[in-house]
Amino acid sequence: TVPTCRVIGEYFDQITFPFKRYQIQPAFRAEKPQKGRYREFVQADIDIFGSNSPIADAECIAASIDLYQTLGFKNTVVLINNRDLLSGLPYPVIAAIDKLKKIGPDRVLSEIQQKGYTLSQAREFLTAASKTTPDNKLQTIFDYLLTSGFSKTSFQFDPTLMRSFSYSQGPIWEITLPEYQTASFGGSVGGGERYDNMVERITGRKIAGTGVAFGFDRTLEALEVYQLLPTIKPNTKVLVTIFSPELLTTSIKIGTVLRAENINTELYPNESEKLDKQLKYADKKEIPFVIFIGPEEAAKKLVKLKNMQERTEKVISISEAVTLLSGNL
Amino acid sequence: TVPTCRVIGEYFDQITFPFKRYQIQPAFRAEKPQKGRYREFVQADIDIFGSNSPIADAECIAASIDLYQTLGFKNTVVLINNRDLLSGLPYPVIAAIDKLKKIGPDRVLSEIQQKGYTLSQAREFLTAASKTTPDNKLQTIFDYLLTSGFSKTSFQFDPTLMRSFSYSQGPIWEITLPEYQTASFGGSVGGGERYDNMVERITGRKIAGTGVAFGFDRTLEALEVYQLLPTIKPNTKVLVTIFSPELLTTSIKIGTVLRAENINTELYPNESEKLDKQLKYADKKEIPFVIFIGPEEAAKKLVKLKNMQERTEKVISISEAVTLLSGNL
Repeated sequence: TVPTCRVIGEYFDQITFPFKRYQIQPAFRAEKPQKGRYREFVQADIDIFGSNSPIADAECIAASIDLYQTLGFKNTVVLINNRDLLSGLPYPVIAAIDKLKKIGPDRVLSEIQQKGYTLSQAREFLTAASKTTPDNKLQTIFDYLLTSGFSKTSFQFDPTLMRSFSYSQGPIWEITLPEYQTASFGGSVGGGERYDNMVERITGRKIAGTGVAFGFDRTLEALEVYQLLPTIKPNTKVLVTIFSPELLTTSIKIGTVLRAENINTELYPNESEKLDKQLKYADKKEIPFVIFIGPEEAAKKLVKLKNMQERTEKVISISEAVTLLSGNL
Repeated sequence: TVPTCRVIGEYFDQITFPFKRYQIQPAFRAEKPQKGRYREFVQADIDIFGSNSPIADAECIAASIDLYQTLGFKNTVVLINNRDLLSGLPYPVIAAIDKLKKIGPDRVLSEIQQKGYTLSQAREFLTAASKTTPDNKLQTIFDYLLTSGFSKTSFQFDPTLMRSFSYSQGPIWEITLPEYQTASFGGSVGGGERYDNMVERITGRKIAGTGVAFGFDRTLEALEVYQLLPTIKPNTKVLVTIFSPELLTTSIKIGTVLRAENINTELYPNESEKLDKQLKYADKKEIPFVIFIGPEEAAKKLVKLKNMQERTEKVISISEAVTLLSGNL
């Protein structure tokens, strides 16, 4: 967020506001690294600058739910709160209550006491935080989400969600995958907040900001654990084999013609390998078509096209092969 | 290259060879950082494992030329040599001659002498290196490139190209942009080599390898200097404006319908901004269509669709708007 705010401040006069941006990039964290929280990690951000409306927050939250549902996490829940509701709480208390889900109420109470408050004061803080109800801004966000077709179960008001960043103000939220609760970081794969004063604090320009950051590595880990990673199939449509070193040039020419027609073509990268092995390679990689050009085909300027699924083959002209392979057959 | 070789060795039995892979990732260099040669940089690689044929090298070289021509560098030249031709040269001599284009022959000669050779020996080394001619492997590569339709000017035999990596063996090449010669690193934006023994040295498994690495940051810098970076236009097709806070829900609904139809839709992220300013935003961002829903349209379940180029507008049903915006009008 901080580097983005610097860019926004510097290129202020070249940017059309409201400014929406997204980015995926390596980032570094200052906090103590631990399992799943590495010093360097990949982060994906979405931000909107120049709008102080809760609609901007709502759009970021909607993108958050949409993203994780699209990835296949059916039970994504975004926990939402508004920092404004907690304006009576000192920052060290906010930081302590932020750990409620991880360490439980007893340890939160003792952490607040360590900050110099009595047990009864600590209890009051915790009760006050737990008892708040959504204000108008949050209501606008909830309305936006329901109107946009998100189910009631995909987001939730959470009065004890605190997001411990000191710069958060206004709406704050965290994306949780209940499927992933066993993870050391409590199932949270990302979060966002409004940070209206950040650009001003850094650059002196008053530009509202809100946005969300997704932990790419954690999300990937969650996808792996829940076997939601898609199987990637090669997108090669045809393998051009090489009959013999003498016929190498012929195969290169056919490959060049096919590639020029935007047909995903592989040339077998070894002219002295047996045809048998080349065919096996196509089979293993599930390449749907294979082209052979032996001395007979080469003499007649024809190619043998083999359909690997149907196990059929025909000897045709190169232009016929192009037509066949360009179609969605 | 080294981390890739480790992966290849480790997953040897799950990989179908010949194995082609490409990747873009941050990398770190051990050498002294300098301008354009940062400690951390972004690198793009293409590699082929499991083929010892020069066709594998040729395919990587072809991809190199193709890539830079596609980026807009009309005069890309790939310099090509074969390390096998230099087998008589000691490695420190190879490392010295590698700097020929940067520091000139006199300083190369004195650097060879510093390695413990006499001036006449140094001259002999340099002459021997300069006098080599392409062998069969290089000829196969050149034939591949010409047969594939690359022009004679897009690649070039360079007997003094050395690639100072100690693990290079067989074909080596470097991609140069003559447009970019003024740069401190001599116009080279990437290079490749065969490294047949690398996997074995690291993992004990004998698997041939060849590949090329492109300097992403340098390439980006060259694109900027030669103004080849494309102008990125927003791909938003329609902006849904918000007439007033009271009609916010109506606008959200329309936006949701359009998005569900895969129409790139922006909802103006501020319900209390004047329509005037919302329209100006669409204009500045060159969004081709704008939808307005005032109290009249809302009552009749219609929308006002404005074509920003033609400056025309019509009041139509939502499904008509979907049809119009889905087309390529």
